[in-house]
Amino acid sequence: MNSKKYITKGDGLPNWENPISHAVVANNMCFVSGQLSVNSEGKYVCETALKEGELAFKNFFSVIENAGFKKEDIVFIDIAFDNLENLPEINQLYSSLFLVDKRPARTIYEVQKLPFGAKIKIAGTAVKDL
Amino acid sequence: MNSKKYITKGDGLPNWENPISHAVVANNMCFVSGQLSVNSEGKYVCETALKEGELAFKNFFSVIENAGFKKEDIVFIDIAFDNLENLPEINQLYSSLFLVDKRPARTIYEVQKLPFGAKIKIAGTAVKDL
Amino acid sequence: MNSKKYITKGDGLPNWENPISHAVVANNMCFVSGQLSVNSEGKYVCETALKEGELAFKNFFSVIENAGFKKEDIVFIDIAFDNLENLPEINQLYSSLFLVDKRPARTIYEVQKLPFGAKIKIAGTAVKDL
Repeated sequence: MNSKKYITKGDGLPNWENPISHAVVANNMCFVSGQLSVNSEGKYVCETALKEGELAFKNFFSVIENAGFKKEDIVFIDIAFDNLENLPEINQLYSSLFLVDKRPARTIYEVQKLPFGAKIKIAGTAVKDL
Repeated sequence: MNSKKYITKGDGLPNWENPISHAVVANNMCFVSGQLSVNSEGKYVCETALKEGELAFKNFFSVIENAGFKKEDIVFIDIAFDNLENLPEINQLYSSLFLVDKRPARTIYEVQKLPFGAKIKIAGTAVKDL
Repeated sequence: MNSKKYITKGDGLPNWENPISHAVVANNMCFVSGQLSVNSEGKYVCETALKEGELAFKNFFSVIENAGFKKEDIVFIDIAFDNLENLPEINQLYSSLFLVDKRPARTIYEVQKLPFGAKIKIAGTAVKDL
């Protein structure tokens, strides 16, 4: 028996052609694919790092919600930048997204290139309390 | 009591000198080390991105199997490219590996360099349903 | 009810200004933020890759311990290098940190840039046996 849940389409989710799920739910965990600044048609929206971050996080939260998880369930966030000089504004955005005493663990780094030449990519994990 | 399982040697697993396990099983989860285009003697096989991807996935699946997990248990895949221009052919390979409605979540990015100068590295997580 | 544990301050933990937790504990899992060569005041300590690795691992282990986990619980380690040529000395350090038959799974890669211009970043996951 396979009771996993594969999140591919749903309210506010980018409709894209990639051979992946936006997220997979296994037991009480949710594994979220790297989210980008992509609109509901799956088209990349090239913008400032801050605005790309806002859209990527919006998509990330939509995925989580469609998977039946809440923002408070997010335990880990992996952010790849195309330029780490954009960290201060992403940190400011980040501070507004999570409660001070309930912030996810995080890892950040600058890569050579992201899909579409995007400025930021956000992947992560959510866990429901048993 | 530590009941974790450390996968180091086994059928079809690259025999290498790195101070790591190919995978660690904890409870119903399997954490898989970054797999490369490496043969059974642990030697890097420099090839086209597609062929490197095929061998890296073959190793990935061997690890999963040796750990007592199935392909359907894979929930998340992390692919690092040395050149994202190879994404279309990797996506084609990828499509052939997973059922349309049971695709893992995924994150992809281009890094500066991979071990051996490899073209692709595949890490990931598998979870058995409770 | 949210029973997650957010590790932000504690014995030997770098005191930093980032809007993140050093680790989040959910059920029997611990998700650890990317640790760097940073001292207890949160200042980056620029050193050889080996010494940066030692301090980053010291911080990593402090986080794990403050979260109520042990070194033996670590199942996966993600190491980003600013230069993969430093791998041999990090492997030597690594060999001294983990028992031969209980080594975590691992993924390594060279990125374009790390926060502070650091030479190594170590993130990971620990799981307690149920």
